[in-house]
Parts: sequence; structure tokens; C-alpha cells
Amino acid sequence: MATIVAPSQISPVEDAEALRLAFKGWGADNKAIIAILGHRNVHQRQQIRKAYDELFEEDLLKRLESEISGDFERAVYRWILEPADRDAVLINVAIKHGGKDYHVVAEIASVLSAEELLAVRRAYRNRYKRSIEEDVSANTTGHLRQLLVGLVSSFRYEGDEINPKLAQSEAHIIHESLKEKKGNNEEEVIRILTTRSKTQLVATFNRYRDEHGVSVSKKLLDQTSDDFHKALHTAIRSINDHKKYYEKDLKDIKELYYKRNSVHLEDAVSKETSGDYKKFILALLGKQE
Amino acid sequence: MATIVAPSQISPVEDAEALRLAFKGWGADNKAIIAILGHRNVHQRQQIRKAYDELFEEDLLKRLESEISGDFERAVYRWILEPADRDAVLINVAIKHGGKDYHVVAEIASVLSAEELLAVRRAYRNRYKRSIEEDVSANTTGHLRQLLVGLVSSFRYEGDEINPKLAQSEAHIIHESLKEKKGNNEEEVIRILTTRSKTQLVATFNRYRDEHGVSVSKKLLDQTSDDFHKALHTAIRSINDHKKYYEKDLKDIKELYYKRNSVHLEDAVSKETSGDYKKFILALLGKQE
Repeated sequence: MATIVAPSQISPVEDAEALRLAFKGWGADNKAIIAILGHRNVHQRQQIRKAYDELFEEDLLKRLESEISGDFERAVYRWILEPADRDAVLINVAIKHGGKDYHVVAEIASVLSAEELLAVRRAYRNRYKRSIEEDVSANTTGHLRQLLVGLVSSFRYEGDEINPKLAQSEAHIIHESLKEKKGNNEEEVIRILTTRSKTQLVATFNRYRDEHGVSVSKKLLDQTSDDFHKALHTAIRSINDHKKYYEKDLKDIKELYYKRNSVHLEDAVSKETSGDYKKFILALLGKQE
Repeated sequence: MATIVAPSQISPVEDAEALRLAFKGWGADNKAIIAILGHRNVHQRQQIRKAYDELFEEDLLKRLESEISGDFERAVYRWILEPADRDAVLINVAIKHGGKDYHVVAEIASVLSAEELLAVRRAYRNRYKRSIEEDVSANTTGHLRQLLVGLVSSFRYEGDEINPKLAQSEAHIIHESLKEKKGNNEEEVIRILTTRSKTQLVATFNRYRDEHGVSVSKKLLDQTSDDFHKALHTAIRSINDHKKYYEKDLKDIKELYYKRNSVHLEDAVSKETSGDYKKFILALLGKQE
């Protein structure tokens, strides 16, 4: 994330000691925590965590958990986790919230590559002593369960081949399912979405748009918006855009945000957040004090 | 497999050259092929394959494919493959046969550990340019699809913890489903079977047996035996016995076979097979000529 103002050279040991100092006494020195963690890149954060563990024989994450709370805690906590671990936590939180948060599960599972998703499944198992599919399926039923379990369990082929005939026939299946108000083709749509390669799926979505003059994801927005259709919509959008996600850069996101909303992302964040949480997020967005 | 009569020291290069010679001329010298490949252990077979590739710049497997055919080919071919690759081929063959062979898919997926199953999924993707779940789900529907896709996509937790309350409640769900002739609890049984850890499942199966005086797998044999119930039965049996599978040894299998059938396995094989296929299988069973 190219917006962070991170020094190129840091001393993990000095940072670990400064954090230790910030934890001293009654109530943590949140300003010091933001000054350090808000200005370190992913690699530096891992180094600090390691140094902290070696110096004080204590897990920095666990210490942070006991020192800070609320939105600020969650932001810092996710920020310091490695990507696979962070996604495992996000999925677990979404499952606990249930209902309207299931699209988060659909998004993470659809955006990641096969190997990245696998790393998240490993991290989840280590952290919660259960599998993702176990928790997802114990909390859902019917088509929503089928879709989510299929997405989180997938290990898609990732070659560049496209089968145009298959794209045509499966675009037709999707069309038939969306056409009826109470589609009885949902199981076939779930099958296609959870098992085909992303390259093949993009070809199928393109075929659909060429034939019907509207994208699958737009068409879905007209449907009843229950949890299942919301997750379905998220999965289709994420698969269609999965390449964009690979070039995650907060700088691009800031530009795109301004283009779409004519408001600077920093200003929107300032309006919506407060306190240490606000300071931390603004530090990540590269705002100098 | 402790029955093979394999010399402790072999020369991969000499073996590769002998195989090359066996392929010379019109029709392969099957006797020579059996004499070599039937008497080499898994490590030695990999060495021979590597030596053959280096000496003749040709894949031994592909050459075998063009030289031999029928049952003999399939046996040799599977014999020389590494386990993950072999299971990928077996799953693919089972999907192609369809119907009554789907229990093979259920068995392989249920017997393997999470990491072993993952290796098979990788091998399948490399070999067929599609995922296992993609091929399974495109060829099945309904509960059979749900069960098989769930089994082949699972990445189960593998800790030793048992939740006795969960074992009780899920044994009850399984009982309710089996009790009715047309169970409408099948989706819950599939969920349990495809997501819980094997240790937990064994506890659930034990609980069922303690309460109803009959094992789940025996009870299932009384049900309608369609493809779904056959695959279900295989999965339950394989999960229940998964520890036994880890100590695969043809010597034990031979003893067990004799104990159960009062017939020697070699004699049964002799009766059921013929030609080079017979000679090859008997060589694997350790029968000296």
C-alpha cells in the first residue's frame, strides 16, 4: 500500500522497545502505537512482531488485544496480521455476525487465488481448531450453504484456456435461472460459479452480457435481495474483477474514490471515524500530521 | 508393500536400458517389463523413471502407454505413478465410468489426510487442466453431487479433540435421517460427514452404535442402495477405518483375505485374471516363478 509513509530503514528492536514502553502504566499510549505501527510496511511489521517476541517472550498481538479496544483494536489487530491470518479472522467474524455479513466470506473466497485461499484455510484451522467449511455450513442452510461452502472449498484450475462452447451453454444456464423469479436452476448456477476456472467464468459472463445486453451482476441486482442472492452477486462481481484485486494499492483506491464520489477518501474517513481509530486509519492513508 | 520381492540394491540405469530393450521391435517384451517393474519398490521405480528420462529423453510412462494395453497397461501404469498422481488417475477413471464407480471417489477422498487429498487435487489439476470438484459436479446432481463434492473439497481439522455433546446431537441427526425411508435430513448428514474432523466423526459413529445397538454403516446397508447411499456407506466405512488404511501392507491384506474367505488371495487372483496382467499382479503379491 503505497500511501503509508514508512521509513526505508527501521530498527525492529527499537520499535519493539518503544511499543513495550507504550504499554506501560495505566492505559496504553495509543499515539505512540499509531506512530509506530501506522508507519511500517508489511515486512517491517513482521520484523517488529518477531523482535518483540524475542525480547519480551510475549506475543505482540495478544498484548495489543489486552491494551486497546473497539474499532481501533480491530484495525490495529488486522493491520499487524499476515494476510492469510487476517482473512481467516475476517471470515470468522463474518460467520459470527451471520446474515448480512456472509458476502464478506464470498468476497474473500472469490478474490484469492487457489493457493492463497488454501493458506487462509490452513490459518483458520490453526487458529480455530475447525475448518472454514465446518463453521460456514453449521451456520447456514440450503443454497446459501451450498454456495459459500463451494466457494471456500474450491481449488480452481488456473490456466488461461477458455472453452467457448462451455461459456455459451453455461451463460444460457445462468440466463434461465435468472429469468424465472423463483429459479429452479440455482444448483447449476452454484456448480458453475464454484468450480469453473476464473478465466472460464469471465468468458461466460462476457458471453451473457453480449447476448442479453446487461451484465449478470446488474441483472442480479433486480432479483430479491436475500442473503443468498447478495452472496451470489458478490461472488460474481469479485470473480469478474479478480484481476483488479491483485493490484491492490491504496493510492489507486484513493484516486478511484475521488473520481467516483468527488470527495477525498481522507475526508470521508475523517467524517465517519473518531479518536485513535481515525488517527490510525489516516496514518495508513498517508496523511502527515 | 512388503510382499514384493525387490532386491535391496538396483541400478536404475541398467533397469532403464533393459526396459528400452524390451520396447524394441514389434510388440513389447512384457515378460521383461514384469521382471523389472514387478520387483522394484516405490523409491526404486521413481529412480528408474528418472534414469530413463535422462538416458533417452523420453517419459517412461508415455512409452509404456504406447507399448502395452488393457488391464496389464492400467496395472503397470498405476504401479509406476506416485501415490497422488495415481489417486488422481483413479478418480478420473471413476468419474468417467460414473454411476456405480462413484464410491471409489468417496473412498479415496475419505481415506486420505487433508494434505494428501490436497496433493491429489494438485495432481489432478496438473494432469487434466480441471479441478476434481469441477468434473465430479458436472457429472452428478442432487445429494450425490453434494456428498462427493464435499468429500473431495474438504480440508478437515485434524486435531484429537472430541466434543461429546456434538457427537450426541449429530448421532441423533444421523439417526433421524436413517429412520425415515425417504429421509429429508440428508443435507445435514452430508454436512456432518464432509466437514467434521475424522476423530469427531468416529466419536459420533460410536455414539450412534452405543445408542442403537447397530453401526451406522450396517444400518445403511438396509437402505435403498442407489449411487448416493452406496457412496455414503463407503465414506462412513472409510472414515471409521481411516487409521487402518495408514498401515497398508499387502502382507496383512493377504492374511486378512485368507481369514475371511478361506481362500488364498493369489489363488483368487489367478482365477480372475489372465495373461500378462495375471503375471504382473502375482509378481506384486510376491509369488516367485
